[in-house]
Order: sequence, then structure tokens, then C-alpha cells
Amino acid sequence: MNPISIAVVGVGKIARDQHLPSIYNNSGYRLVAAASRHGSVDGVENFTDIEDMLTAMPEIEAVSLCMPPRVRFDAAYKALDAGKHVFLEKPPGATLSEVAILEALAIEKNVTLFTSWHSRFGPAVEPARAFLADKTISRVDIIWNEDVRRWHPNQDWIWEAGGLGVFDPGINALSIMTHILPMPVFVTRSTLEIPENRDAPIAAQIDFQSASGIPVTADMDWRRQSSDDRWDIIVETDAGTMILGNGGARLSVDGVMRADEQETEYPTLYARFHDLVRAGRSEVDVAPLRHIADIFMLGSRKTVEAFYD
Amino acid sequence: MNPISIAVVGVGKIARDQHLPSIYNNSGYRLVAAASRHGSVDGVENFTDIEDMLTAMPEIEAVSLCMPPRVRFDAAYKALDAGKHVFLEKPPGATLSEVAILEALAIEKNVTLFTSWHSRFGPAVEPARAFLADKTISRVDIIWNEDVRRWHPNQDWIWEAGGLGVFDPGINALSIMTHILPMPVFVTRSTLEIPENRDAPIAAQIDFQSASGIPVTADMDWRRQSSDDRWDIIVETDAGTMILGNGGARLSVDGVMRADEQETEYPTLYARFHDLVRAGRSEVDVAPLRHIADIFMLGSRKTVEAFYD
Repeated sequence: MNPISIAVVGVGKIARDQHLPSIYNNSGYRLVAAASRHGSVDGVENFTDIEDMLTAMPEIEAVSLCMPPRVRFDAAYKALDAGKHVFLEKPPGATLSEVAILEALAIEKNVTLFTSWHSRFGPAVEPARAFLADKTISRVDIIWNEDVRRWHPNQDWIWEAGGLGVFDPGINALSIMTHILPMPVFVTRSTLEIPENRDAPIAAQIDFQSASGIPVTADMDWRRQSSDDRWDIIVETDAGTMILGNGGARLSVDGVMRADEQETEYPTLYARFHDLVRAGRSEVDVAPLRHIADIFMLGSRKTVEAFYD
Repeated sequence: MNPISIAVVGVGKIARDQHLPSIYNNSGYRLVAAASRHGSVDGVENFTDIEDMLTAMPEIEAVSLCMPPRVRFDAAYKALDAGKHVFLEKPPGATLSEVAILEALAIEKNVTLFTSWHSRFGPAVEPARAFLADKTISRVDIIWNEDVRRWHPNQDWIWEAGGLGVFDPGINALSIMTHILPMPVFVTRSTLEIPENRDAPIAAQIDFQSASGIPVTADMDWRRQSSDDRWDIIVETDAGTMILGNGGARLSVDGVMRADEQETEYPTLYARFHDLVRAGRSEVDVAPLRHIADIFMLGSRKTVEAFYD
């Protein structure tokens, strides 16, 4: 079968670091174009505007959207409306309502829409899911602590209303949680800590529960030293304590290591998108973003010390 | 066909004012029980706990849940799990995630789940929807202003985190908007005005847009005198200016009145629930609550003057 002719929109750091190498290294794709206001890609057609690109190159079959969520809807709508398969970086939109509009359009146009959640493709995530599938779970604790100055230096947009703040990485934890737990949960209480000079939270404590009352807590905090970075999900089960650590790369049960591998998230994401396109199917999952929206709707707010980069 | 044996859970003001009369006046129902921590209903079996009621009276076919959303999930889950049809007051949950759990359970149990939005059953709402169906819309303005001291006196819970504040009535406007507009919209910007001594907004300004860029604004404000109460949706179309006024009771186009009737929202809601149960179908629509969650996730916050009842 011929490779899928794909174009990338939004040529920034994440596109260069992850998307482009994953596409180049997958023989199922042929990169044919890029559209970006600032960046460009060597060796393919470059455009500054997605509409111009879609008009000029009808041979494009799929489009991968790598720009920030606040400006992604318009491009996604145009690409789907033109009959292209669409790969969305996480989160799939700035709002849940716009993702619902895209989902309906993809069905109408009979094309693939893929809401990608890269953290679900960490090497220890599937082993964790398989381990939990037949266990009795008594509690879950998510600890997602990092040094914002190291991981998000001078990203002013992330601190604006809608920028999600600590949930920009925190949504990765929720994308793993919703994938590995055998039961759904919902937020019952949350506290958002918002620096007095910013609009988005620097930290959050969240209580979830399952329908049967199993507690799930999440502690997300950006005010750590790099040496204290932790991205762990700890699950107490009838077969021991499972720790999915290092953001989904490492799995241990009662201290015995079961998986500790190099992460290959984006190559696996592009393999998945390829399978979906060839199978004529979509994968639209808003559960992680829905939890974030629920947290903002339900959460109480606490003003904390100003944050300066 | 025999009437549906129904029980009411949560016997407070809304149950007495609306639910119970609508059930009594509909020959398709027989009220057989009530469960409530504080209230009771004459002439039927009364319980303080829904689980006791479901165990004691297996003949109950349907349950109507009239308590506040923060405590509704548990009752809804138990009722569905026991194979009962469930009628949910608006909003259908405190979070979107819990409604998704209930929806999945209703499918699994093959029973009817009805997320009721009473304002959609205002007498001029269907005429408005029919008018707009084939018109070209250029803009929409929602004005939902009321005197909180008159309509929500001393309701402390409404001012708490998750109590929704001005969106408690405002969600009615969004339930009508999502029903009458022929195209979906999504939030692009919002400002929430939160009194310095409260956790929920007293006012909000919201900008929505459709995929093609049609603007929809909403001005929700609780700081009005009763004489200035307004619940209007104004739609500019190629066939004139449509005003759906008085919360969905009155319809005019270019000043010519087309409908102005007594509201019969709850009787119509119960007729709809009856039809759904008999047809073996559910109606689960989270669009109005999804907009509220999007508004909280995307909105910027402004602290305003303290509010005292």
C-alpha cells in the first residue's frame, strides 16, 4: 500500500522534536507539506496558511496539527471539511464543545479523527493496564510534581486563562489514569492554587472517586526543584502496590521492577494513527480534558504567592 | 397500558411546586413512593433513604431525582443499577464525568435515562426552533439578568465552589440556545465576576462562536432589580430579528408577536419521560453543562464587591 501523504501544521519545538522524526522514521507516511506562520520544513512544500496548503495540494491525505490548542480548532475544522484525516496533539481542543463539533464533522465526512494522548503510549502503560485489569483496587494516588522553571520556562500563554497552568503536564497523568484504571472516576473536590499575578493554577489537589467509592487523589505541583521531579501513579491492589513511575516508563509491583524502558511515545502514536486511517476508524476520547473541565467547574480557588519566571 | 409506577427522591420546593403536580396530573404515572431526608409525601410509602426504598418496593419502575446535583450521582447510580428508569433534574450532575458514567450504566442495564432541561419545554421554544431552522443567522445575544435576592434568597450552597452561581439560572439559557440554534457553538472567551466573599460567579460575560464564525454573546447578571429581570435570546436573521423572551414563553419577529403562552414546562417534561420509557429509549444531552464547564476552564476571573443576602 502507498504511504499516507501527510502535512504538518505548526512547526514549533514539539513538531521538530517529536512529530517530524516520528513521521520520517515511519515508512507508512510521506511528508509532503508544512504550514506554519513562523517555521518551515526542508525538502517539502511550505505554506504560511493551512487553507492555501489544502487548496494548492489536493493530494494531501492527512494533516497533523501541532500548534497550541487555542488556535487549533479552525485548522482542524478546515482540514476535516476538506476531507482530510486529522491527528490532534493533546489536549484535543481549548474546549470540550469544539471537540464535539470536530467529532461530528469527521463522521459526516467519513474521515479519521485521532485525539492523541502521547503519555498513554509510554512503554510501561500497557503493562500497568494489563496488571490492573483483574485486580481489586483500594486506592489510587497520583503525584505529578515538577519544576516549572525547568520544563516550561517563559511560556507566558500557559499562565493565561485557558492555558491550563499545572494541568498542561497534569492532563498527561489523567490521560494515563483514564486508560489504566478498570473503572471510571469523577471529581468530588478540588483546590486550585493560583499565583496572585497569574490566571492559571501553579498547583492543584484533586479528589476523585469511582461509583463504588474507591478514592483517587491527585497532587499536581509545579513549585518543585528539578531534583524532586516526580510523575508517579501509585495503585493499592489486592496483589500489592503497583507504581507506574517516570511518567509511564517504569512499572513495579511491591518494589519488583516489571518494566523500565526507553520511551517511544510519538513513534507509537503515529503507528496508531496509521492503523486508524487504514481501518477507516476514528479515536476520539475527551475523558482527560473532561476531568480538567470538571475540576475547573467544581474547584475552589486559593490565591498564592506571585510567580515570576 | 398500565401507568408507570414512579418514586420521587428529594422532596423539597421544586418537587412540591413542579414534579409532584405534574405526576399527579398525568394518568401515565402512579406515584408509589418518596424518599427524602427531610420531606415526605402524603398517601404513598415514605423512606429516608433511596436504597431502603428500592429494596422494599421492587414494583417501582421509575425514579425522579429532585435533589441538588452535588448529591444526585449516588442516588442515580443506585436506581439505574437496580434497573429503574431515571429522570434527572437539571443540571444532570455536578460533573460531566459522572453523567458519562450514568449514561454507560443506563445502556448496560437497558433502562431509560432522561437528562431533563425544563426550559427547553417553554411554549415558545419549539416555534423559535422551527423559525430558525431555515434562516441565515448573523448574530445571537443572550441576556439573562435577574435579581438574585428575589429568585435565590439565602441559598448558600449556590455560592459555593461547584454551586455554579449565576449559571444556576444561566444554564437554562444555554439549554434553550443549544436546542434552537441550527448550528453548534463553542466558547472563545469569558469573564467570571466573583464576589470577594464567595466562590461562585454573580455575573458572567461570554463569547461563543460557530464553526463559521457567527458570534453568540451571553450577558448573565444577578445584580438587577426585579423590575429589570430579563430572560431573552435575540437572534438576527435574514428574515428579521427574532426575540425569544420571558425565558422561552414569548416569541416575536421584528416586533410581531408569534407566541405568548402560559408555561407548562414540567407537565411536558413528564410527558416526554413517559414517551421515552415506553419507547425504550434514553435522552442524554450534556451540551448545556459542557458549555458551563468550558466557560469555567477558559474563563478569566475578576473579583468584585462582596455579596450579602
